Amino acid sequence: MQPEFTAIAHPNIAFIKYWGNRDDALRLPLNGSISMNLSGMETRTTVQFDQALVQDHFELNGETQSGPGLQRVSDFLDHVRRLASSNHFARVSSSNNFPTGAGIASSASAFAALALAASKAAGLDLNQKDLSRLARLGSGSACRSIPDGFVEWLPGEDDASSYAVSIASKDHWDLVDAIAVVSQGHKPVGSSAGHKLAHTSPLNAQRVLDAPERIRNCREALLGRDFARFAEVVELDSNYMHAVMRTSNPPLVYWESATEVLLWQVWQWRKEGHAVCATVDAGPNVHVLALKSELEWLQKALWELPGVKNVLTGEPAEGARLAV
Amino acid sequence: MQPEFTAIAHPNIAFIKYWGNRDDALRLPLNGSISMNLSGMETRTTVQFDQALVQDHFELNGETQSGPGLQRVSDFLDHVRRLASSNHFARVSSSNNFPTGAGIASSASAFAALALAASKAAGLDLNQKDLSRLARLGSGSACRSIPDGFVEWLPGEDDASSYAVSIASKDHWDLVDAIAVVSQGHKPVGSSAGHKLAHTSPLNAQRVLDAPERIRNCREALLGRDFARFAEVVELDSNYMHAVMRTSNPPLVYWESATEVLLWQVWQWRKEGHAVCATVDAGPNVHVLALKSELEWLQKALWELPGVKNVLTGEPAEGARLAV
Repeated sequence: MQPEFTAIAHPNIAFIKYWGNRDDALRLPLNGSISMNLSGMETRTTVQFDQALVQDHFELNGETQSGPGLQRVSDFLDHVRRLASSNHFARVSSSNNFPTGAGIASSASAFAALALAASKAAGLDLNQKDLSRLARLGSGSACRSIPDGFVEWLPGEDDASSYAVSIASKDHWDLVDAIAVVSQGHKPVGSSAGHKLAHTSPLNAQRVLDAPERIRNCREALLGRDFARFAEVVELDSNYMHAVMRTSNPPLVYWESATEVLLWQVWQWRKEGHAVCATVDAGPNVHVLALKSELEWLQKALWELPGVKNVLTGEPAEGARLAV
Repeated sequence: MQPEFTAIAHPNIAFIKYWGNRDDALRLPLNGSISMNLSGMETRTTVQFDQALVQDHFELNGETQSGPGLQRVSDFLDHVRRLASSNHFARVSSSNNFPTGAGIASSASAFAALALAASKAAGLDLNQKDLSRLARLGSGSACRSIPDGFVEWLPGEDDASSYAVSIASKDHWDLVDAIAVVSQGHKPVGSSAGHKLAHTSPLNAQRVLDAPERIRNCREALLGRDFARFAEVVELDSNYMHAVMRTSNPPLVYWESATEVLLWQVWQWRKEGHAVCATVDAGPNVHVLALKSELEWLQKALWELPGVKNVLTGEPAEGARLAV
């Protein structure tokens, strides 16, 4: 038995979204993206390779997994084994401190934590860039949960050049993400399947073409702490992605009625002078990005809106790290 | 005093939408559109030119109008006077049999009826093409309320070539439009102002570029009474337009939460085998297009959905005509 390693990683919220791959197998994205790691929510994963095992074992939140869940982890471990020139199977135990059904994507934090723990457990000592590349192979957005704070995923042109870097530390800007979790009335399409439909929307080419401009705008707004400029590009980018989703074939509709109410309300609040804006991922929840000074009234106000069943809050967080 | 003429015209619902002009003054549209005149709802307008008048008079639903409402009618009458080489002012009296606040656009039926009544009252005898061109100058979509039944607006390249023609009579297909009128929670942007924002969306160029393909698809589905094909292109086109609206600068958001619920529900009904599909204009109401055989259960079901405050029904109708 080799030593076990435990790693911690956070989910992240994208300000400029990742949607669609130029290479599905390598998860090379059509466009770059920018995100913030979210404190409070985390995945904690322990990995140990053991030559006595005849297959990989994977336990999630205390339950042994089989089928597609195990397969995806095992496929990922194959990348680690290839890098480490190892043929040992592993024992993987993972837990999230946020409810899986809450509509917070867990694949980013899951594969970021797994990449770090598994690479260490296999005796590798990858630098941040290579760790980010490795995490990307498990879930595209996982590469953004590797570096600290505010992160940009450089889309790159091949496996070697597609990875995420920190563009500002978590202390750079007092942003918060107040996530209005809404009741889910209809069955979503998983984002891995969704990414493959991006190409079917006639609007996607323009979204991709304009992405470098939005990336630049968002990066500059972020670095300059210019909330008004930040808000405008974040909402535009989210609307862009959902426009592509809705015009895909078949159409992808992630919004619920509560989503529409929330988006409108956030827009009104900003018009009234509050530093708030909204972004929506591949689900119905509304992520309200705000200056921390707005958080107190904002949380209360979100709770009072129709269809809101929970409000979770995340602040800028560090990247993936080993548990001490 | 010259003789008075009374004309009747119906609103229309667009299957392929008109959004954005290549020439705002002449209302030359960026793309062609296809629509159906709606029975049941109508505007009735009487016009009389009178050399004793010192300005135009305009009464709408029994109330004398002044300001922008009068100005728009007077500007339109200037076109008629120019065609008739007349300098007489007119008395215009107009009424809608559908509530103005119900969210059913009345400018199409209004300017179609006004074009016919005013041109006759001025002694002109315009053919259908020239009448459609004239109506277009008052409100773009009004040109589609001139011909009978199912109508295509040929976008054209100049004032002379931009007009609507009937592509099938009202008896061609047993389609109905069940309009779910929803509570309006936020103030809409008028469509004349909205059209001018189409250019600010980065997605608009693609919408316009693909329009001839959608027009062809819709026309063929309509002529072949192929509901499945019709439904697909109608919903795509509506989603396309709202994608452009939402990514305009400033963003135009016409949907309410009830809109989202209705769209989802209609989609589910179609998956269950019903011949229904949905389209949304520059407002929150959902137009459910269906085969007439679906109407009975559909009306009841729409009434039961949250946020629906009225259900109006229109069948294919004739074009603008003189009252007898």
